[in-house]
Amino acid sequence: MILGKASIKFDEAPYIQSYASVVGKKEGEGPLGAAFDEVVEDPMFGGENWEDAEGRLQAKIAQNAMKKGEFTPENIRYIYAGDLLGQLIATFFGLKDMNIPLFGLYGACSTMGEALSLGAMSVAGGFSDCTMCLTSSHFASAEKTFRFPLGYGTQRKFSATWTVTGGGGVILGKKSSKARITGITTGKIVDYGIKDKENMGACMAPAAADTIYQHFCDFSSKPKDYDKIITGDLGYIGQTILIDLLEEKGCDIKYNHMDCGIEIFNKDAQDTHAGASGCGCSASVLCSLILGQITKGAWKKVLFVPTGALFSPVTANEGNSIPGIAHAVVIEHS
Amino acid sequence: MILGKASIKFDEAPYIQSYASVVGKKEGEGPLGAAFDEVVEDPMFGGENWEDAEGRLQAKIAQNAMKKGEFTPENIRYIYAGDLLGQLIATFFGLKDMNIPLFGLYGACSTMGEALSLGAMSVAGGFSDCTMCLTSSHFASAEKTFRFPLGYGTQRKFSATWTVTGGGGVILGKKSSKARITGITTGKIVDYGIKDKENMGACMAPAAADTIYQHFCDFSSKPKDYDKIITGDLGYIGQTILIDLLEEKGCDIKYNHMDCGIEIFNKDAQDTHAGASGCGCSASVLCSLILGQITKGAWKKVLFVPTGALFSPVTANEGNSIPGIAHAVVIEHS
Repeated sequence: MILGKASIKFDEAPYIQSYASVVGKKEGEGPLGAAFDEVVEDPMFGGENWEDAEGRLQAKIAQNAMKKGEFTPENIRYIYAGDLLGQLIATFFGLKDMNIPLFGLYGACSTMGEALSLGAMSVAGGFSDCTMCLTSSHFASAEKTFRFPLGYGTQRKFSATWTVTGGGGVILGKKSSKARITGITTGKIVDYGIKDKENMGACMAPAAADTIYQHFCDFSSKPKDYDKIITGDLGYIGQTILIDLLEEKGCDIKYNHMDCGIEIFNKDAQDTHAGASGCGCSASVLCSLILGQITKGAWKKVLFVPTGALFSPVTANEGNSIPGIAHAVVIEHS
Repeated sequence: MILGKASIKFDEAPYIQSYASVVGKKEGEGPLGAAFDEVVEDPMFGGENWEDAEGRLQAKIAQNAMKKGEFTPENIRYIYAGDLLGQLIATFFGLKDMNIPLFGLYGACSTMGEALSLGAMSVAGGFSDCTMCLTSSHFASAEKTFRFPLGYGTQRKFSATWTVTGGGGVILGKKSSKARITGITTGKIVDYGIKDKENMGACMAPAAADTIYQHFCDFSSKPKDYDKIITGDLGYIGQTILIDLLEEKGCDIKYNHMDCGIEIFNKDAQDTHAGASGCGCSASVLCSLILGQITKGAWKKVLFVPTGALFSPVTANEGNSIPGIAHAVVIEHS
């Protein structure tokens, strides 16, 4: 059922059949360490370079999600997947031997929201009985792509976030389970003109506010209708801006807002400054803490809103602003 | 209706409500020059750099597609779009002021097939009454990204293809028209181990063969059931390989195969070697020659198969192979 300008409430909401998270050593040492399915100590994941490492990470996520749900690649009709690297090379090289029809997606760190939205449409529309949605990020491949190679030892601003090495995968289908995707609100690009790529929380918060507010309008809902409203990777600075922006529109989310970028690391002990980021951040927290709480019924209804900063090394060097985008997904206990 | 491993036949096939193509000067001088909606002489499209130029090209395509169909941005529920640049910056910066919910896609030069497949699902599934699918490429932004800046004056191999400056946009909806998307076959990644990024036709032909063969199996159809089987940008070398590979499987497509990368330039007069490529190649030929022939009924049924080479400057430098992917879309006169 189409709602308002940007939302869908599914008549037959797809069920989450299986999910899995895989993260690196640092993420495993954080507050959510015990919640992840697998913590891999080797930052190379057995690979030869950082891109290969992230590809192997993504393959491992897919394998774990299938194994936990007792699926084989033959059971998976579609994969919707993406990563942060140019031309999605972690996704394509990681998943190339799976032999599964694949849609490559890029929404920066909002990609898990995009994958779940499109994946849910494929199942709810009757086009797939089994769709896998997954994303990854890797600290070293992201630093190399967007900032400086690690060997330079560049200092980080306090407003910068730490890219998560990790990711998550969700398998959607029609078989009854404890969690389902009941609705989505698709984001549009929002540009407040911010240019500081070491303050991505500020770049993305306006898009998160826009999508969340649009969601409340389209669903005629209020913040207190959700046990949690969970953004992807705004971090501490972005969280403050988001709460302020929504307060200006009459929405008080401060009592039930959570940000995956704040939850995954211990800011002081782990030296992660403004929080965490990367499309593996929201995906790995979704596929550990969040779906854990939803499937056991501790949280009945969650608004999950991965947030992306839209820039490349080229646009940043050319002096462009960094617009944001955010895609919201309603996940309910069932 | 789900067909076989990788295909859908739509019960309510979405109609093509409007379409538009915009290309650069060289494309305008080619054999299809008169068929394009707009030929822009300025390679910068009024912008400040090549990325900005491609963004403006993409915005122009969207505006033209809306104008031809008498749509405004308020009528468009979703955009499914992509380009070849890292982090999809032409798409995001080109479309950021449209204020339309957007899904960013990356399938290299197969992206128009991916966009049409997902866009058709959104309409056929009842999730959208109006979806725009568009892709672009730009010779100079692609050369800068994947090969060498133009100023280097690097010599091109005869097996290399020329990236099209241009693109196309299609608006899908439910209102009756002269053309509709009746089915799709979604590609998986196929890797024959070829590493030569100056012979992308060879890299992509195995994926095209795989998707087309899968399509015939899933739909129980034969080559002669289609007026044309049209690949995206295999060029002359890729075409020969595709025909050979399908012949080995008992499918003779040589009498009705056409490749957008062969059609758009005059090989000898325009010095384009093995043909054309880029996700704007298949998109601009679709939104001029192909949809023109289909809407007037000269072609009743076409299998449109954009093909993508999956690599980045990083994977190429690291010595990886270049796998391919291809997504097929059935477009019929109605």
